Amino acid sequence: MMFEIVAKDAMGRIGKLKTPHGNVETPALMPVINPNLKFISPKEMRRMGAEIVITNSYIIYKNEGLRQQALEKGVHSLIESDLPVMTDSGSYQLMVYGDVDVDNRTIVEFQGKIGSDIAVPLDIPTPPDASKEKAEKDLAETLEREDEAIRIYRSFTGLIAAPIQGSLYPELRKLSARKAAELKPDFYPIGGVVPLLDSYRFADVVRIILEVKSVLPPSAPVHLFGAGHPMVFALAVALGCDFFDSAAYALYAKDDRYLTVQGTKRLEELHHFPCCCPVCTDHTPDEMKKLPKEEREILLGKHNLWVSFEEIRVIKQAIKEKNLFELVENRIRAHPYLLSSWRLVREFGDLIETHDPSAKQGFFYTGVESCYRPGVMRHHRRILNLSLDGERFVISSFPDEPADFKLIPVFGIVAGDWYPAGHAELPDVEYIEEEAIEKGLRCLVGFLRENADKTFELKLSKRWISFIEREGIDIPENAKIKFPEDHDRDVSDKKGWMGENYPVGRQRNS
Amino acid sequence: MMFEIVAKDAMGRIGKLKTPHGNVETPALMPVINPNLKFISPKEMRRMGAEIVITNSYIIYKNEGLRQQALEKGVHSLIESDLPVMTDSGSYQLMVYGDVDVDNRTIVEFQGKIGSDIAVPLDIPTPPDASKEKAEKDLAETLEREDEAIRIYRSFTGLIAAPIQGSLYPELRKLSARKAAELKPDFYPIGGVVPLLDSYRFADVVRIILEVKSVLPPSAPVHLFGAGHPMVFALAVALGCDFFDSAAYALYAKDDRYLTVQGTKRLEELHHFPCCCPVCTDHTPDEMKKLPKEEREILLGKHNLWVSFEEIRVIKQAIKEKNLFELVENRIRAHPYLLSSWRLVREFGDLIETHDPSAKQGFFYTGVESCYRPGVMRHHRRILNLSLDGERFVISSFPDEPADFKLIPVFGIVAGDWYPAGHAELPDVEYIEEEAIEKGLRCLVGFLRENADKTFELKLSKRWISFIEREGIDIPENAKIKFPEDHDRDVSDKKGWMGENYPVGRQRNS
Repeated sequence: MMFEIVAKDAMGRIGKLKTPHGNVETPALMPVINPNLKFISPKEMRRMGAEIVITNSYIIYKNEGLRQQALEKGVHSLIESDLPVMTDSGSYQLMVYGDVDVDNRTIVEFQGKIGSDIAVPLDIPTPPDASKEKAEKDLAETLEREDEAIRIYRSFTGLIAAPIQGSLYPELRKLSARKAAELKPDFYPIGGVVPLLDSYRFADVVRIILEVKSVLPPSAPVHLFGAGHPMVFALAVALGCDFFDSAAYALYAKDDRYLTVQGTKRLEELHHFPCCCPVCTDHTPDEMKKLPKEEREILLGKHNLWVSFEEIRVIKQAIKEKNLFELVENRIRAHPYLLSSWRLVREFGDLIETHDPSAKQGFFYTGVESCYRPGVMRHHRRILNLSLDGERFVISSFPDEPADFKLIPVFGIVAGDWYPAGHAELPDVEYIEEEAIEKGLRCLVGFLRENADKTFELKLSKRWISFIEREGIDIPENAKIKFPEDHDRDVSDKKGWMGENYPVGRQRNS
Repeated sequence: MMFEIVAKDAMGRIGKLKTPHGNVETPALMPVINPNLKFISPKEMRRMGAEIVITNSYIIYKNEGLRQQALEKGVHSLIESDLPVMTDSGSYQLMVYGDVDVDNRTIVEFQGKIGSDIAVPLDIPTPPDASKEKAEKDLAETLEREDEAIRIYRSFTGLIAAPIQGSLYPELRKLSARKAAELKPDFYPIGGVVPLLDSYRFADVVRIILEVKSVLPPSAPVHLFGAGHPMVFALAVALGCDFFDSAAYALYAKDDRYLTVQGTKRLEELHHFPCCCPVCTDHTPDEMKKLPKEEREILLGKHNLWVSFEEIRVIKQAIKEKNLFELVENRIRAHPYLLSSWRLVREFGDLIETHDPSAKQGFFYTGVESCYRPGVMRHHRRILNLSLDGERFVISSFPDEPADFKLIPVFGIVAGDWYPAGHAELPDVEYIEEEAIEKGLRCLVGFLRENADKTFELKLSKRWISFIEREGIDIPENAKIKFPEDHDRDVSDKKGWMGENYPVGRQRNS
């Protein structure tokens, strides 16, 4: 296998891709090198953390001088890279201009001849809102070209990609992924997502990734083709993407825009650099604004790369620590549509659970999203499958009270020292969201029903009791709620964080 | 005035403190310099972003050599700082060891003689869980010493601080702040919070800050004494703190710990540095682990400072952009107790609103916490005070439907292009939390009641209608819900993000 997975968390992984020019550790970001333009050299990019770059074989092919040089000395020499080089095929130009001056066979062979480490067929990127007929037609053509490309590339040492298309049609995306997998390519770019990313349609991107991942073998290296903003890296890795490519670093720099994981800033609006990369520690925004355009562009381009590779390291570290969910739940705050998009994952709980390793070091609650981590589902099942030895049990929501089981938000029933529930770090029960209380109660009710032949005494604090009463939750008859004498120590009978502490109305103003 | 406020957001501000050795821009972090130890020089700290440092006058006073040198050449020369220098008085030693070898008058005069830019009386830090009697007694003594110190310091050019104590007793904290303010010091440290921060009792810290801020004049420069972890800076600034001091950078480094805004990492658990400061771009964790202890400690200390000053710049930039709430709502995800602590702010809505400037550029929703920003309360009041010209009105929750008013989550009724509600960036209504829907409906109901003499037609999507039905919300009689013919385009009748998509029970396993 060309791709080996060495660590996992959520659906994300750290992997190793073997290429003729060396191994690449994933998640990996491939900066785009424009063969026509000297900007930031692959050598400098290596220092920033690049392990592979990407360039465009169609641009090289179309330029007589570049073409000859690439054919004679190879693409690595042409762009002065001692890192592995992936090449794009002209598909992007096809999408933007509607046509290209080359056919699939020619451009694939050309990529082989110039020594590309990862070659791409001339697939057809269907725009997001194309008709189904168009998407089907484009996909049929794409699949033929992929088949042809893979045959051609057998005579070259590099890897060959099979891009996945299908616009916004889930069944076409799945078909594309299934057919691609049958061809056994070395590399799986998910194509056609740039227009979605550009218009912040993150939910569509999340859905596409999850549909595709539900079909691809887990061992397939997946490239989110065209995704270059660090804002989306953590989310995409958590969904199982391994590669990104960034033209963004240069395009944004050209436009005086400054990348951060929280979104894009315009240089003119920056008073302080929210970063300590070598560029941002050597300059202030005011100094940079005064530099000549060309110099400014290079500095901004470098910052954009530094911050992008920083995020890649942050993600790798999170995978090693097995807290990628926490990282993603943090990163999605960068934009409300990212927040929305992540909330789709609850519809793919089974898929995520299949990929997510079950052993976690801990559980840090970051908000309602945390309720939907696979570890929570796993805990609920484990509790329901518990066989009880005895007849009568005490369940208490008070942390320091002796009881057979504890009741806590999110996880519900907790027995002993189980990981991660027994060691979960949760906000005060008084301040946690209703959803977290509800999740816990659903587990409690399931557990009581499951053990209908036993009896239970429930010692619950006010937050739990008021939720049960307000929402009319049906507590099975084998359990009796007992108000502990000192239950007043939990004085809250507010609606938790949802509660209102100021009335909407005139009385406030009067 | 010694302190001038130049920009504001939430309760946070960018300010300028004048000292004999130059101006300091706030929020400012003062790295602690140990006069006994050469570690990282003030000169290097300046490059990292330091504008002021802090050292301990008691340690200098106790050491014959240091004392003479400081008296002859001044404290700036002693610690080789051309930045302003604040001096602590020995109160910390008093707290840790229970006693010190100096009295208030002596140590205050000493600070004056060695040229301290900000001197501190020998106040008495009461531990968090002390009895009220002890807290009262300590406070009475502290107030006397502050009075004495302020008189003494009239003959020196530097600034004099009046620390605020009172342990966890709100009325004592407020009394301390009120009395301190009467003495008209130049600087207001909030003392006695280190044990709380060390044990992650963030909610107690938040409450103390808010109680103190409710009493202090808005123009008072406030120092959260002993807070040095960048994880809490954004939150503390948003509550109105202007100064921090960090011994953490060195103490943590000594212990092979690595600071991040997400919390502390141990060097041994780092596989990748989640940072691109000059230290982290020049070394890998593996390289650093192999360095001699002393060298490693300096590098970690430098990283810890770089990342701390980066966070200060991030915060300043957020204040300038007026999105400090968004930043805090992001940072609190670092620990569930930070999340809890921030949720206290809803109890201080009026206070925060008094400080928060009303003109905002935008509104980005990051989660339920966003519902409690002052701009939301302001919007609700504005809507209730609207006088309507006409008899019949249409309110629609469908964005592209013509209507007199829109209904949106969080803000509720939106009229025209009002900032920020009319331009709020919210997640899809299908995926937003129940609280956000509830907030919107409360505004709707208040608005309908307020205009009981008018009639309204409500065109609501399923998410709204199902919430109204499930929660039994009483829609006033002057409004009629009309199901638009095409309301099926909002197909969701799930419980939004709270909804369950998998049943807790055996049926799932079978």
